[in-house]
Amino acid sequence: MRTSYHEELDSILDSLVHMAELVEVAIRDGSESLLTADLGRAEAVVSNDAELDRMHEEMEYKCLSILALQAPVAGELRTIVSAIRVVFELARMGDLAAHVAKIARLRYPAHAVPEEFEPSFREMADIAIEIIDQARVSLQNRDAKGAERLAEIDARMDVLRRDQFTRMLGEDSTISVEGAVDVALLGRYFERFADHAVAVGRRVIYIITGTVPEGEDWPNA
Amino acid sequence: MRTSYHEELDSILDSLVHMAELVEVAIRDGSESLLTADLGRAEAVVSNDAELDRMHEEMEYKCLSILALQAPVAGELRTIVSAIRVVFELARMGDLAAHVAKIARLRYPAHAVPEEFEPSFREMADIAIEIIDQARVSLQNRDAKGAERLAEIDARMDVLRRDQFTRMLGEDSTISVEGAVDVALLGRYFERFADHAVAVGRRVIYIITGTVPEGEDWPNA
Repeated sequence: MRTSYHEELDSILDSLVHMAELVEVAIRDGSESLLTADLGRAEAVVSNDAELDRMHEEMEYKCLSILALQAPVAGELRTIVSAIRVVFELARMGDLAAHVAKIARLRYPAHAVPEEFEPSFREMADIAIEIIDQARVSLQNRDAKGAERLAEIDARMDVLRRDQFTRMLGEDSTISVEGAVDVALLGRYFERFADHAVAVGRRVIYIITGTVPEGEDWPNA
Repeated sequence: MRTSYHEELDSILDSLVHMAELVEVAIRDGSESLLTADLGRAEAVVSNDAELDRMHEEMEYKCLSILALQAPVAGELRTIVSAIRVVFELARMGDLAAHVAKIARLRYPAHAVPEEFEPSFREMADIAIEIIDQARVSLQNRDAKGAERLAEIDARMDVLRRDQFTRMLGEDSTISVEGAVDVALLGRYFERFADHAVAVGRRVIYIITGTVPEGEDWPNA
C-alpha cells in the first residue's frame, strides 16, 4: 500500500515534468509562429492547448483523490498541494503561449510584431524558453538552488518589457496604433509567462524546504 | 473536537467573504482613481494591496494546516481545497486593481483613459464591481445558481473589450500610441478581473455540487 502511494506521488511529479515539456513546445512554437508569421504553426499551438487544459483537470483530480484517500502529511502533503498549484501555473503558461499564437493568427499574413521590435521579442522568446526549461529541470531534480535562479531570469524579462515601453512612447517613435496594441499585449503575455515560471519555482522550493520564499523577487504568480 | 473543526471551516468561508469585500473596495477605488485621475486614491489602492497578499499567505497556511491536522474528506475536503484556490483568485483580483491604480498614478496629473473611452471604462468598472459583488454573495449564501450568473456578467465584459479594439483600430480612430497602450492594458486588466471572478464561481459550484462546470463559458481562471 505505501509503495503504491509513493509510486503515485512520483508519477505526479513525472507528469508535471512532462507537462512542462509540452509548455516549452507551446511557447517555442507560439513565439516562432509570431516571429515568422507562420499560420499553420499558430493554429497548432492554439489547438494543442486543449491537451494542456485536459491535463490540468486530470492532474488536479488525481491530486484531490490522493488527498482524500491517503490523507498525506508533512512533505507528502506539501508535494500534493504544491502539485495542484504547479499544474495550474503550467496550464496558465500554456494559455499564454496560445494567446501569443492567436495574435500571430489575427495579423496573418502580416507580422504582428513591428520590425524594429523583432529583436526584442526574439530575446523575450529565448528568455521564455530558458525559464520554462529551468523550471522543468528544477522540478525534475528537486533542485531548490535551480529554482532560485528563476527570479534572475524573470528580472531580465522585466527589463526588456520596460525597454519596449520606453521605445514605444519615446519622442522619435514611429510605431502605429495597431503595432503599439500588439507590443503592449505581447509584452504582457511574455512577462506573465515568466511570472508563472517563478511561481512554479516557489512551489519547488516549498516542496523541498517547507518554506515559501518571500519578497519582491518572488511575486505571487 | 468536531465542533471546533467546523468552526474553523466556517471561519475560512467568512474570511473569503471578507477578502472579497476588500477586493470590491480595491476595484472600486482603483477604477475611480483611474477615471478621475485621483493620485491619493491610486496610492491607497497600491499600498492596501499588501494586506490582500498577506491574507492570501495567511489563509493558504490555515487551509494547509487543516488539511494536515484534520485530514478532511468529501465535502469538507472540497471546501478546503477550493478555499485555497479562491483565496488565490481573490489575491490576483486585488493585484489587478492595483495594476489599474498604477496606470492612473503613472499618467497623473493627466487622465490615462482617452476621453472618448471614458464611458467604456466606466461601464467596465461597473461590471467589475457587479461581478465581485455577485461572487461574494454566491460565496456567502453557498448559492450555485448565483455563481452560474458570473459567466453572463463576464460575457458583457468581453463584449466591451472587443468593442474597444474595434474602435482603437478603426479607420477614423484618432487615439495616440500612449492612449492605445493604456487602453489595451487596462482593458486586459478588467477582462482578467472578470475571468478570476468566474473562476471563483466555478469553485463555489464545486464546493456545493462536487462537480466543476466545464465549457467555453467557464474559462480556467
